[in-house]
Amino acid sequence: MIDHGDILYLQEHLPFLVKLDLDDKRRVLDAVLKSAYQQGETIHSRRDTECNGLVIVKSGQLRAYFETEDGKEITLYRLLDNDICILSASCVLKNITFTVILEAEKDSLLFLIPAVFWGNLTVRDIYAKQFAMELVAERFSEVMWVMEQIVSKNMRQRIAVFLLEQSVLETSDTLTMTHETIAKNLGTAREVISRILKYLENDGIIQLSRGQIHIVDLPKLKEIGR
Amino acid sequence: MIDHGDILYLQEHLPFLVKLDLDDKRRVLDAVLKSAYQQGETIHSRRDTECNGLVIVKSGQLRAYFETEDGKEITLYRLLDNDICILSASCVLKNITFTVILEAEKDSLLFLIPAVFWGNLTVRDIYAKQFAMELVAERFSEVMWVMEQIVSKNMRQRIAVFLLEQSVLETSDTLTMTHETIAKNLGTAREVISRILKYLENDGIIQLSRGQIHIVDLPKLKEIGR
Repeated sequence: MIDHGDILYLQEHLPFLVKLDLDDKRRVLDAVLKSAYQQGETIHSRRDTECNGLVIVKSGQLRAYFETEDGKEITLYRLLDNDICILSASCVLKNITFTVILEAEKDSLLFLIPAVFWGNLTVRDIYAKQFAMELVAERFSEVMWVMEQIVSKNMRQRIAVFLLEQSVLETSDTLTMTHETIAKNLGTAREVISRILKYLENDGIIQLSRGQIHIVDLPKLKEIGR
Repeated sequence: MIDHGDILYLQEHLPFLVKLDLDDKRRVLDAVLKSAYQQGETIHSRRDTECNGLVIVKSGQLRAYFETEDGKEITLYRLLDNDICILSASCVLKNITFTVILEAEKDSLLFLIPAVFWGNLTVRDIYAKQFAMELVAERFSEVMWVMEQIVSKNMRQRIAVFLLEQSVLETSDTLTMTHETIAKNLGTAREVISRILKYLENDGIIQLSRGQIHIVDLPKLKEIGR
């Protein structure tokens, strides 16, 4: 399933692996799945009866989001090359009662340690448990940052921050995305986004064209996002 | 510092204690501090240079909140009798980068395991670590619930939910609290709260008097909060 290069890669990014005895390590490596996902595919869905497990992003880009009961999506964080998602193993994390959905924003190559296997490992190995704990804490901190954004910034500021983040992710001033996509990311209605983008265009800060947003005045956009 | 009754109490509420060897257990119990706080006092403040540690509420009521950079407060959860706060030991939780502030809403009696001591214990003891992990996960889930409320419900709904919660906490239909207090809890301006409360009064759902809010139509209030 995985080759020698993959093993070296996993040892580098899963520090608890090297602390396991050889048999245990072999069992973990035997359990790892490697899968490619295409842009737009959902990796972890609340509609699954079972959750996925520990997801390691070898390459690509995933969006982790939370879906409210009334169908709004809130983007919690993004996973880029070498990032690891623990909340996709929520079923084996005691007391995590919410579900995070992962969606491939770019074609992605992932490693997966299945949930049941991961759960067993963290019960008996203190290093794996510590690793899980640190990942949960990291995501918790990111979610608190998102909450602060939601509470403290108005929608105009949040759109500015979002466009700036996207511009960094895409390393481009021209973003290919619909107003609907922005609305989903920020948990609001498309109409709200379109209205604010139109204002920003009138102020000469961005330029809108079919399916694209071009950042014209970066310093001004940064100022709004602050 | 603590008496025999306290030791029995702590053993009951800190399950990892009974798994420690006798020397270790003795050291934990020797480190425990017992303190009384009066209503309105802050237990854990971001202005402290060091954080407090694991807080166990023997009796009373604490509010755990987060303060945004622009000074808005968001109530994250409440701690009642026998509840335990781990985020007050955030300095020894790797990757927790935010600060939770604890405030006594009622006169409270607390046990505290100081942060440094708690940090050392969770590094070497898998049961204490597991206990910490489960508490962090539990708080994480509660915070996600708060975030869902913020995103999905409008302020009228959130005020209704808040009044209902308070009514349960106080076991009374008459709540003694200012509009300012509600505003702080929900991270908004006092004017917004006053306006919505006035509407609710006009609809015959609540009755306002000096420093008090009386719930007149409980079923209607529940309907709004839904």
